[in-house]
Amino acid sequence: MSEELRRRIDQGAGNEPADLVLKGGRLFDLITGVIIESDIAICGDTIVGTCGTYSGTREIDVSGKTVVPGFIDTHLHIESSLVTPYEFDRCVLPRGVTTAICDPHEIANVTGAAGIRYFLDCAENTLMDVRVQLSSCVPATSFETSGAVLEIDDLLPFKEHPKVIGLAEFMNYPGVLAKDPACLAKIAAFSTDPIDGHAPQVRGYDLNGYLAAGIRTDHEATTADEALEKLKKGMHILVREGSVSKDLEALMPIITERNSPFIALCTDDRNPLDIGEWGHLDHMIRTAIAAGADPLAIYRAASISGARIFGLRDRGLVAPGWRADVVVLDELESCSVNTVICGGVLVAETAFAGRKIVPPVGRDSVKAPVVHADQLMSPAYNGDIPVIGIIPGKIITDHLRMDLPVKAGLPQVDLDQDVIKTAVIERHGKTGNIGVGFVKGFGIKHGAIASTVGHDSHNICVVGATEEDMAVAANRLRDIEGGFVVVDGGEVLAEISLPVAGLMSLEPYEAVHERLLKLREAAESLGTVLEEPFLQVAFLPLPVIPHLKITDHGMFDVDLFELVRSAD
Amino acid sequence: MSEELRRRIDQGAGNEPADLVLKGGRLFDLITGVIIESDIAICGDTIVGTCGTYSGTREIDVSGKTVVPGFIDTHLHIESSLVTPYEFDRCVLPRGVTTAICDPHEIANVTGAAGIRYFLDCAENTLMDVRVQLSSCVPATSFETSGAVLEIDDLLPFKEHPKVIGLAEFMNYPGVLAKDPACLAKIAAFSTDPIDGHAPQVRGYDLNGYLAAGIRTDHEATTADEALEKLKKGMHILVREGSVSKDLEALMPIITERNSPFIALCTDDRNPLDIGEWGHLDHMIRTAIAAGADPLAIYRAASISGARIFGLRDRGLVAPGWRADVVVLDELESCSVNTVICGGVLVAETAFAGRKIVPPVGRDSVKAPVVHADQLMSPAYNGDIPVIGIIPGKIITDHLRMDLPVKAGLPQVDLDQDVIKTAVIERHGKTGNIGVGFVKGFGIKHGAIASTVGHDSHNICVVGATEEDMAVAANRLRDIEGGFVVVDGGEVLAEISLPVAGLMSLEPYEAVHERLLKLREAAESLGTVLEEPFLQVAFLPLPVIPHLKITDHGMFDVDLFELVRSAD
Repeated sequence: MSEELRRRIDQGAGNEPADLVLKGGRLFDLITGVIIESDIAICGDTIVGTCGTYSGTREIDVSGKTVVPGFIDTHLHIESSLVTPYEFDRCVLPRGVTTAICDPHEIANVTGAAGIRYFLDCAENTLMDVRVQLSSCVPATSFETSGAVLEIDDLLPFKEHPKVIGLAEFMNYPGVLAKDPACLAKIAAFSTDPIDGHAPQVRGYDLNGYLAAGIRTDHEATTADEALEKLKKGMHILVREGSVSKDLEALMPIITERNSPFIALCTDDRNPLDIGEWGHLDHMIRTAIAAGADPLAIYRAASISGARIFGLRDRGLVAPGWRADVVVLDELESCSVNTVICGGVLVAETAFAGRKIVPPVGRDSVKAPVVHADQLMSPAYNGDIPVIGIIPGKIITDHLRMDLPVKAGLPQVDLDQDVIKTAVIERHGKTGNIGVGFVKGFGIKHGAIASTVGHDSHNICVVGATEEDMAVAANRLRDIEGGFVVVDGGEVLAEISLPVAGLMSLEPYEAVHERLLKLREAAESLGTVLEEPFLQVAFLPLPVIPHLKITDHGMFDVDLFELVRSAD
Repeated sequence: MSEELRRRIDQGAGNEPADLVLKGGRLFDLITGVIIESDIAICGDTIVGTCGTYSGTREIDVSGKTVVPGFIDTHLHIESSLVTPYEFDRCVLPRGVTTAICDPHEIANVTGAAGIRYFLDCAENTLMDVRVQLSSCVPATSFETSGAVLEIDDLLPFKEHPKVIGLAEFMNYPGVLAKDPACLAKIAAFSTDPIDGHAPQVRGYDLNGYLAAGIRTDHEATTADEALEKLKKGMHILVREGSVSKDLEALMPIITERNSPFIALCTDDRNPLDIGEWGHLDHMIRTAIAAGADPLAIYRAASISGARIFGLRDRGLVAPGWRADVVVLDELESCSVNTVICGGVLVAETAFAGRKIVPPVGRDSVKAPVVHADQLMSPAYNGDIPVIGIIPGKIITDHLRMDLPVKAGLPQVDLDQDVIKTAVIERHGKTGNIGVGFVKGFGIKHGAIASTVGHDSHNICVVGATEEDMAVAANRLRDIEGGFVVVDGGEVLAEISLPVAGLMSLEPYEAVHERLLKLREAAESLGTVLEEPFLQVAFLPLPVIPHLKITDHGMFDVDLFELVRSAD
């Protein structure tokens, strides 16, 4: 270390050539907000010189370009990119995301601690600095069957791992407010570490109670009013632009220079289609600026603010002594990434090729029974039938009560009202539970869509116009180690295999992208009107997001935090 | 902890009365900058409710008053208050300073690790949260004789102490730039902790080299231009208003809302006269606002920004889940402190009376030889004589070269030019060295002033119009275990005893204040024109502040970082 310090001091002071110099560019200084004509000198993994002229052993001409700090995704589930952490690294780092604070909650729900260990092992080998928050709520509630249950004693062995940053999103906010002993034990054990929050529409005194427990961040605010209340109460807002949950537009009013020290950016769940077609945090930045955000505010939120909020003291500015996470932009406003340096390494395919690959866990994870159409009948209800109302681009749903046709005493699909059937089939080899209900808003007129990605327990989720196609789709997932499948008239129209825990592909992200395009086309052929039908399917079960959801136990009223009672 | 969490959640959610409620006041929210009518609910040491109405087991009416977070002094030497940490606590906490990040550098230079241990023991018993940065440069240079030398192995045992925050001001910036192995070993060992800086007038490539070592903060910027360069290079600025070094006015241009996340406040060295007459950080805040600072910027700098810069994640906002460090102001603009809550405790004399008192270390520390007037002759120089030019209110000095009268080949005092003599007498029982030189700017026409406070080695420092009075003053310090003394015509006019390491009194701060008023009066009777003659004396030796200083080795050229050569 002393020898490295010696090199840094000498290179910073200009006594010897720097290891790497970005020559002739313009530095956007996120402290004072000014643009500075400056070389950037880098020694090893550390920036050692700015605001001056440097010569380097290696030099890159960045004249006419603008330099900003590497971006930090402050909350995401890498699993939602449908590729392994290695492919995520290869896909997203070239877009400027040099740090990703991930919650391996999805794989943990399927494989338990083994999944967290796999992510930590990957994190030690990616070019990008992947950090891991320990999944705090596996499963999120007791109203679903997950592949694993993580209690405090399962998490403590990871607490001091150098890649770990405290506890991930504490989704079980009703458990916190109810002072559930298992929840409090986790919070108590991590009370001096960052504990990420998850408090959709939690307001007023409930919010105060949740915050009083020491939870400090939230990515579930979906309106500016909600975000402002949270900010005023000291809760840092992670503005999210996922593939389903897109909150950037609604939260634009809070992205101001004044608030910027207390807001950061995240993607939460973003799929390869969106990453490939629109981008990642780079997309958020250019979208925000195009919509009128102050560049200083949004670039701060993308770097230094996120770093400070999560205690990453070494990064977030392009300045001497800071970690060499640097993004070179063709243009500041459009956030068009030209070159990325991560920890001093020039990001390029050769660098990715040099990574040590850790074999994945969670193979052969789909242990669901073979399902028959007659197992997919909805129970009867007294009065109107509970129907999940899809809100396009949101994971929040409406809790509808509708009058549906009835056959043999049981409620039925009603295509005229755009109401189709949905089911969740337990697939971890535990109970074989099947929960059945209704959903409005997909636009599907025939066929079915099924997925082993179903937040957060990742049972098989299926929606369809007929029970027969739903059964075919669900059963096909058993054959391909999980994934997505589109079925019509008993035939598979398109599919992707996700053999890593039923969540992630073993293919390169480009191939996954291609398959998803075919799946999207197939889903459209069923009549779906949603941009991201697979993600909307995947979030139907999530029982910690208001208002009506479905698990393998049945329809779940999130506001009452209890299962909807059917007519016995 | 779980039981405490349960109470916090219930009290925050309003399910049960809070332990303490500040009723009916107005909260200045430092995130959004708005004023919010709100009760403040506190459970134990934690704020649990804002933006609402609460009832409490204990309630305090704060209607018409404004609530802000407790202030954080991000860099100070408690020793400069001339009282023990307990009396500092009693004196400064009621002014709203709920956290003090101190560097026990002065007592460490006299007593070594025992002094650091004493401060840590005190810190565990004060009401205020005293944090300790480990003194990095004891002594600051090898050109002086200190009472102790602290190497990396002396510091490491304290590294994990819960009150310790990394390394204190790295004063030996020439050592860093010269890659001195002992300096680099300390920086390497603390590379993941905050390492405070000290880089007066270090600019350009030298500054880059210093920052490249990982040093992140600085309180030595004395002009806005210097501070701006440092900010642009990612160095956080701790705006200082001490008793000698008063930088607030010069740094006003950088105290903006934009910069506010990256600036904090500190006092460095502030004496009881100034604290008693003007205040502490409260004085800085009202002075800044009166001079036009944005209240949001200065209150942020006084709290949340300092907390973030030093990694104190639990404090800096008045919001649920944050540490209950709360200042109730009669008025925001004048920062008139009405009531202080520190860690949930209402600050009052009864609370101070309940503290456990740790006995001080460093008694009988003045081990200087008896000095005779003829030992206080200046050496001869070739050419003009080096004279320290005092700049009132600054610890930086001018390096003057003057033509002085000569007697028996030796340069003499010249009252017409306002040049008197100064000497530093080693007092740690080691060498008995005496360094002698000249100083211009005190205004003293007769008599002498002596002190055992002499940064940073705290040898005896004396200035005077005659060698005889200088000797009397220096020798008197041996009798009173150190302190300050004013002598005229061989008689002691006023004095204060500082028996704790020759730096701190055992009396209450009020008594110290009274004695200092008498000392000030006595010093004025000698003709001094300086507001703080004892502090200006105390900083004459500090050999890491430009440009000309004096140590027990002799006159020291800080720019060349070498002793001034006398003739032969």
